[in-house]
Amino acid sequence: MTEPTALDLPPVDPLPPATQAYFDRCVEKLGFVPNVLRAYAFDIAKLDAFAALHNDLILGPSGLTRLEREMIAVVVSAENRCFYCLVAHGAAVRTLAADPALGEALAMNYRVAPLAPRTRAMLDFAVLMTRASASVEDPDRARLREHGFTDRDIWDIAAVAAFFNMSNRMASALAMRPNPEYHAHGR
Amino acid sequence: MTEPTALDLPPVDPLPPATQAYFDRCVEKLGFVPNVLRAYAFDIAKLDAFAALHNDLILGPSGLTRLEREMIAVVVSAENRCFYCLVAHGAAVRTLAADPALGEALAMNYRVAPLAPRTRAMLDFAVLMTRASASVEDPDRARLREHGFTDRDIWDIAAVAAFFNMSNRMASALAMRPNPEYHAHGR
Amino acid sequence: MTEPTALDLPPVDPLPPATQAYFDRCVEKLGFVPNVLRAYAFDIAKLDAFAALHNDLILGPSGLTRLEREMIAVVVSAENRCFYCLVAHGAAVRTLAADPALGEALAMNYRVAPLAPRTRAMLDFAVLMTRASASVEDPDRARLREHGFTDRDIWDIAAVAAFFNMSNRMASALAMRPNPEYHAHGR
Amino acid sequence: MTEPTALDLPPVDPLPPATQAYFDRCVEKLGFVPNVLRAYAFDIAKLDAFAALHNDLILGPSGLTRLEREMIAVVVSAENRCFYCLVAHGAAVRTLAADPALGEALAMNYRVAPLAPRTRAMLDFAVLMTRASASVEDPDRARLREHGFTDRDIWDIAAVAAFFNMSNRMASALAMRPNPEYHAHGR
Amino acid sequence: MTEPTALDLPPVDPLPPATQAYFDRCVEKLGFVPNVLRAYAFDIAKLDAFAALHNDLILGPSGLTRLEREMIAVVVSAENRCFYCLVAHGAAVRTLAADPALGEALAMNYRVAPLAPRTRAMLDFAVLMTRASASVEDPDRARLREHGFTDRDIWDIAAVAAFFNMSNRMASALAMRPNPEYHAHGR
Amino acid sequence: MTEPTALDLPPVDPLPPATQAYFDRCVEKLGFVPNVLRAYAFDIAKLDAFAALHNDLILGPSGLTRLEREMIAVVVSAENRCFYCLVAHGAAVRTLAADPALGEALAMNYRVAPLAPRTRAMLDFAVLMTRASASVEDPDRARLREHGFTDRDIWDIAAVAAFFNMSNRMASALAMRPNPEYHAHGR
Repeated sequence: MTEPTALDLPPVDPLPPATQAYFDRCVEKLGFVPNVLRAYAFDIAKLDAFAALHNDLILGPSGLTRLEREMIAVVVSAENRCFYCLVAHGAAVRTLAADPALGEALAMNYRVAPLAPRTRAMLDFAVLMTRASASVEDPDRARLREHGFTDRDIWDIAAVAAFFNMSNRMASALAMRPNPEYHAHGR
Repeated sequence: MTEPTALDLPPVDPLPPATQAYFDRCVEKLGFVPNVLRAYAFDIAKLDAFAALHNDLILGPSGLTRLEREMIAVVVSAENRCFYCLVAHGAAVRTLAADPALGEALAMNYRVAPLAPRTRAMLDFAVLMTRASASVEDPDRARLREHGFTDRDIWDIAAVAAFFNMSNRMASALAMRPNPEYHAHGR
Repeated sequence: MTEPTALDLPPVDPLPPATQAYFDRCVEKLGFVPNVLRAYAFDIAKLDAFAALHNDLILGPSGLTRLEREMIAVVVSAENRCFYCLVAHGAAVRTLAADPALGEALAMNYRVAPLAPRTRAMLDFAVLMTRASASVEDPDRARLREHGFTDRDIWDIAAVAAFFNMSNRMASALAMRPNPEYHAHGR
Repeated sequence: MTEPTALDLPPVDPLPPATQAYFDRCVEKLGFVPNVLRAYAFDIAKLDAFAALHNDLILGPSGLTRLEREMIAVVVSAENRCFYCLVAHGAAVRTLAADPALGEALAMNYRVAPLAPRTRAMLDFAVLMTRASASVEDPDRARLREHGFTDRDIWDIAAVAAFFNMSNRMASALAMRPNPEYHAHGR
Repeated sequence: MTEPTALDLPPVDPLPPATQAYFDRCVEKLGFVPNVLRAYAFDIAKLDAFAALHNDLILGPSGLTRLEREMIAVVVSAENRCFYCLVAHGAAVRTLAADPALGEALAMNYRVAPLAPRTRAMLDFAVLMTRASASVEDPDRARLREHGFTDRDIWDIAAVAAFFNMSNRMASALAMRPNPEYHAHGR
Repeated sequence: MTEPTALDLPPVDPLPPATQAYFDRCVEKLGFVPNVLRAYAFDIAKLDAFAALHNDLILGPSGLTRLEREMIAVVVSAENRCFYCLVAHGAAVRTLAADPALGEALAMNYRVAPLAPRTRAMLDFAVLMTRASASVEDPDRARLREHGFTDRDIWDIAAVAAFFNMSNRMASALAMRPNPEYHAHGR
């Protein structure tokens, strides 16, 4: 099994029972433990803080569907050219949408994907935040409201886009390597 | 008291006792509750996940001093031109370093600040991650090791820089307003 | 069958026998006529000029292998975020290299791909030409020679990279749509 | 006679009769053989493929005038800061328009040139394709149609702009040197 | 007293009486001689030419208030990340506006400052000139006129913005150091 | 005679005798009054301050030759795509160097011009100041010293480059139109 990053930070050994149970659930569901979790496992407080934030954003209650959140993950990661996140979340989009071409389009150039105007507006906001966050102003938020997004939805769009701007940078800064199994998912 | 962001997401009312106690400690220590915490208080799970990650990164055990972590926060926020974070973390640098001019220099153009080469290397890495994370490669990490940073230190540099790339984007996307008290801190 | 581009320029009908034979050979070999050829078929002189240049560059005699030329196509297309070319030439890299992960890495961020230094130098030159051609100078060509590339090889690297800077722009300017069959190739 | 590029790739010697005849016609018409043709003459298949594409685009039947096509060549080459193409096609614009100042303005900053709105729209599209081809979308093509361009015209605008994005990169990557005679043309 | 720049260019000694009187007036009014003046004092012709231009622009008759001119100075200097000018003119904005937070906002991200639309339009023009002067066109000037600016006002906006694009570059190119007294002004 | 800019700011009428004499000398020497001077003539204090600074920098005593100063003017103006300054100072380079091709190369892409390493270093510094002044640091100044430039020379390089960053922006912001006579100079 390859190291999850370019740093020499081996996981706590043995893992605490709760962590081991979490990793076992990953194996059960995905067939493997995502390398991002293996990377954080050298410090359980860090792993828990990261996982809590990630899981609240991606799996927690929200006006955004799970697929919408994964679409944001992919376009932000494409903007930042993050290999790890494009592979992992590209797989999620392909699987959730049951549409491999959509996953590819979002990873390559989301402007060519056939998207509903509401979805396009959501992704445009996420990309603007990624490229030039200091230029976001009231009209940008107003455009989301015009497409029917509530203030709570806007929070969630911003939070998911912001999270992947963090996560992309951790992955790229540390040369995080995606598990090879992702490549075949949802093809 | 002004709204903490441009969104209409009032805090849970009443706050759960643990949250109220946390906010009370802020008032005791800083004289006010930072608006970022008031902003997240519409959903306690989100507030807790954000605070856990922030506090682990800024206050948790690390080979980096508290000042070093705040310096990373400021140069990343300067790169992203995040008003909220520059005000709040600029104040922290001024206070921790007891050097108002250093805080200003880091917020305006960190290249002009009189920094030890090790500190400069740390900030260069944080800025590279911010501007062009996909271009980080082995020689960039090697440069940090040459300055005496351990792999654990490199993780922490990356994690703090990545966190503020998230936090800057939340603040700018939602027009988060810094508490006015920060401006006078450490002058 | 969807239109190959956003323009209303139907193919010459009937196709001249030589063109029809060329298209038949495509169907035999790939299972379909690539949309780029269908797009040019409204004017046989244009189709022939394009195909002659493409085929000389990709299939003609060269010190570069077929895979090397396709790798250049993919990294240039990634730089330009050209959906059509990433799909079509990403498939070619996956198939020729028998390595799906390599194709993905080149399409997402070629810096993370495990490449021989010579290959990396070749791709760095192609990317430099794509991003900032006016900044190419003697030391850039010298670096290729140090990796063993001859002047003829340098011509070919430049010619392939330049060609895809043309081709990417035609595809994006006209909203060229990749044939859906490409997505499954080489997975 | 100086070498046409920085590469040591001498022309086939003797040139095949058809090539020699082509070069003789150039001398007759221009007073010299353009260095771009001398550069390609190390491989007649490459020379022929390049010349066929170039001549179809610049001299072939089109809804665009010869001057319009040369104007696109100049603004694209200005965007890419390609010395060879600016010199050669700047001369063509000066001569065809009988207006030296127009040639200069297009080479320096086409926004200051006194252009008909239709011409300006054509050049804006060519510049957009050059700078950010992945961002071209339906409204960009619609704007050209509003100015009276047909779909065939749009193809030609795109094809000329794309061609010079190739040609500029070949010239810059190989340090192609313009024939000195161009400087005096059309002054 | 530290050197005003990284160059070894000591002031004329003794200063001519008029220069000495000018410097004495600075000490009287500000408590010190601004380092920019000490820097130019190696050559009195250069000092006089610089001071004449600066004083005409900042203190001379104009439809713009003194505060408006200083606001332009700050946003241009923020765009160029000029430490010297941000410190010196940030202090001027804080003092003239009697509003420390406004000075900070303009120095960090002027888009978040609560500005009248007319002021915002003025600063947008100054920033556009700073970032991409070649793209300024008639509609940009028309927008200023719509906000009530006269042609003479537009000249002054342009002249102040242009001046600080010069001054920022002198300061950064020569590592000009701001007098430490500025940091405390207007807090 | 066309208006010198897009603003309606007619010259003082009659001009003061000293200004009239200056303009008469221009006509004698160049055949016309440069439009930049006609533009400033609506306010004699502004005209005098501008002319004093310009003339000190371009004509005053310096370790840089007049041609070197004009070369800086051209590469800075090329970087900023300033039509007025490229036309006027391109003409000056062509005339002073008696080399039309050099003037063209500097205006189009100075990297292709055959320059002495010392001259190239000077122009690289001017371009760095133009593009990214905040990134200039000690090693950049040290490189100039290695090429034999004194600290006074470095001041002059910086001052000329900074001046044209001002002048380019005035010209572009106000749509300043170059006198047509320049186009033919030095061809």
